[in-house]
Amino acid sequence: MNHMNSHEYYVPGYLANGISAGIKEAGRKDLALIFSEVPAKAAGVFTTNCFKAAPVLVDMERISSGTAQAILTNSGNANAATGDEGYRDALTMSRVASRQLHIADELVMVGSTGVIGHPLPVDKIENAVEPLAAGMHSGGIPAAEEAMMTTDRFPKMSCRKILIGSREVTLCGIAKGAGMIQPNMATMLAYLMTDADIEISALNAVFKEGVAQSFNAISVDGCMSTNDTALILANGMAGNRTIRRRSRELTPFREMLFAVLNELCRDMVRDGEGATKLIELVVEGARTDSEARRVAYAVANSNLVKTAFYGGDPNWGRIISAAGSLGIPLPVKAVKLFFDDVCLFSAGQGTTPPADRVAAIMAQDDIQVRLDLAMGNKRFRIYTSDLSFEYVKINAHYHT
Amino acid sequence: MNHMNSHEYYVPGYLANGISAGIKEAGRKDLALIFSEVPAKAAGVFTTNCFKAAPVLVDMERISSGTAQAILTNSGNANAATGDEGYRDALTMSRVASRQLHIADELVMVGSTGVIGHPLPVDKIENAVEPLAAGMHSGGIPAAEEAMMTTDRFPKMSCRKILIGSREVTLCGIAKGAGMIQPNMATMLAYLMTDADIEISALNAVFKEGVAQSFNAISVDGCMSTNDTALILANGMAGNRTIRRRSRELTPFREMLFAVLNELCRDMVRDGEGATKLIELVVEGARTDSEARRVAYAVANSNLVKTAFYGGDPNWGRIISAAGSLGIPLPVKAVKLFFDDVCLFSAGQGTTPPADRVAAIMAQDDIQVRLDLAMGNKRFRIYTSDLSFEYVKINAHYHT
Repeated sequence: MNHMNSHEYYVPGYLANGISAGIKEAGRKDLALIFSEVPAKAAGVFTTNCFKAAPVLVDMERISSGTAQAILTNSGNANAATGDEGYRDALTMSRVASRQLHIADELVMVGSTGVIGHPLPVDKIENAVEPLAAGMHSGGIPAAEEAMMTTDRFPKMSCRKILIGSREVTLCGIAKGAGMIQPNMATMLAYLMTDADIEISALNAVFKEGVAQSFNAISVDGCMSTNDTALILANGMAGNRTIRRRSRELTPFREMLFAVLNELCRDMVRDGEGATKLIELVVEGARTDSEARRVAYAVANSNLVKTAFYGGDPNWGRIISAAGSLGIPLPVKAVKLFFDDVCLFSAGQGTTPPADRVAAIMAQDDIQVRLDLAMGNKRFRIYTSDLSFEYVKINAHYHT
Repeated sequence: MNHMNSHEYYVPGYLANGISAGIKEAGRKDLALIFSEVPAKAAGVFTTNCFKAAPVLVDMERISSGTAQAILTNSGNANAATGDEGYRDALTMSRVASRQLHIADELVMVGSTGVIGHPLPVDKIENAVEPLAAGMHSGGIPAAEEAMMTTDRFPKMSCRKILIGSREVTLCGIAKGAGMIQPNMATMLAYLMTDADIEISALNAVFKEGVAQSFNAISVDGCMSTNDTALILANGMAGNRTIRRRSRELTPFREMLFAVLNELCRDMVRDGEGATKLIELVVEGARTDSEARRVAYAVANSNLVKTAFYGGDPNWGRIISAAGSLGIPLPVKAVKLFFDDVCLFSAGQGTTPPADRVAAIMAQDDIQVRLDLAMGNKRFRIYTSDLSFEYVKINAHYHT
């Protein structure tokens, strides 16, 4: 969770707002608008699910231009599995926004999150866009975030600044996403706004790299959604020397971007549906990156591992069993498992660490788990959560 | 669940028993012995987990001879991740049984199920083997089954007979396994006994084939255990004409075997930890067997799909989203999804079936789900269960 005040979520040249359009139950904010005063460089990463929601299809087409100026997003309805009508509704969303904002239609990106398979109440959006745009202001980012939330228990925002030359450059990110968080960015929307002046090819490269090791390295329940979208806009209003792929200014920008993405990620997992713990799992000693990743996901997605953490049970047996289930020929007697700095498994069997030390670790909100496969030098880090009664409760009932 | 009486679980030439050795809490049966009066042909299929429990390592070595005469199994302790000491304990189990039964040590198979990573209390087993063997009788199969159970809510037994020529041939199977049921046979022990006279090569082939489409096509929680073992003994005492790989007698024997395996499977899923529903998922229209299997597992293992079934929510969106998450290029508008005979998704969007009909299906204990990928003619069937509060409750606490 972040600790900034609302007035700190501000990026020069951006206006935002979030209001209720009446899609969710009475009064809850469900329509968000982000607007850059000038057209911005834009990059995006989208779900790889075949069943892509209509707004994803629209955005994927538009992002190829490398330019965008506004993002209109609704919660309460995913506009997914809604057929041709859904696609037309996504275009309608964009059209009403572009008219209201007096910009080219192709500069509007759209997003939807919520229940799948119900027609989008696009008339409600049409009616609400005028007051939504009229109410935009430079401090409106938290309102936009609030309007994107579904089962989220708290807003996810992160903001950082760096100096490039004498110019201050700001980056703010907001995200929504609780359930369905797994590789390839399950029901997750993340929007990043910066006033950096950066070349589109540099922006594309650094954003893809950042998403790969943040949003694509977390798992709440192993499910991937039809709507996942991460977008970044860079409007250049900081007036810094242009950041290029090989310029030294890329390094501090990348660091800032990765820090913001990482903070959004951790908050997203911490707010995973029903999550009570944040588990940082590092698989190391793998022969290849892909091997490290596969083992990490097998452990992170294991319901037996997740329920053990929920129960405060240091059940290392479930972790090594999950790691061993992939057909990768692990050297059983060389594999080691640590919770924080305590070794729980080595030489093919459990160790006998001090019980009070293990109990203290299990009682923490954040637990680091390190699994050394002892075969090579590749590693993969993943954030995951536990599996609780609350997860079942949330997901066994309809919700928007 | 089966409906035979105990006296029907009888196979000529086999004795069995199950008693309490004091491994589980007071009085619960935890030690099972199955004994064939003559050495039997034997085949086995084992977990592919790297972290194989000690009894699995022993059995894998011994099964290569193609002969066995007894199976000694304890519950309450898995003898897994117990290092060299665990391996010695497994050998000790076998030795005390072989001495008691006056047979060669190599003819004894061993099994363990329960908690991982605790030393096996092998002295309790040593003390209990004498009364266990002394109490064996031809009607002892249900007692043996009871002694293998851990979190199982009911025993899983299936028995069938066929005629080969004028000879009656009997096959009985018993199984344990509730949690951790996923491909490659998670914490699952299944022992089959037949009096058929069958060549070892035919027995090996037909048993592997049967396990592949039964125990390796079910999923409760996507986890695979260190102990999974399926064994079949065939002692030839029926006196039938020997069943060979190419003889016509193989067909009725295979049918009987598959029927017994299928019944054990369905009961295993129905008794999955916390399961309230049995879902038979058929993925058809795939281009390859492996594609059908991958999609089936992605859907069957999705926590969002499982919780929806628990909640009685006909959430087809979660099913198609899970199917679409694998990177397989599904023809979105041709894919169809059925619950029983009701189509819920086609032409890229939800249909509008009669609500009362859908509600009636969701209220059933058994639901058939059919997903047509519309790309080819390959199919895969899997049994799975829902995900309930009870699953979390069982697995968030220690249990034996």
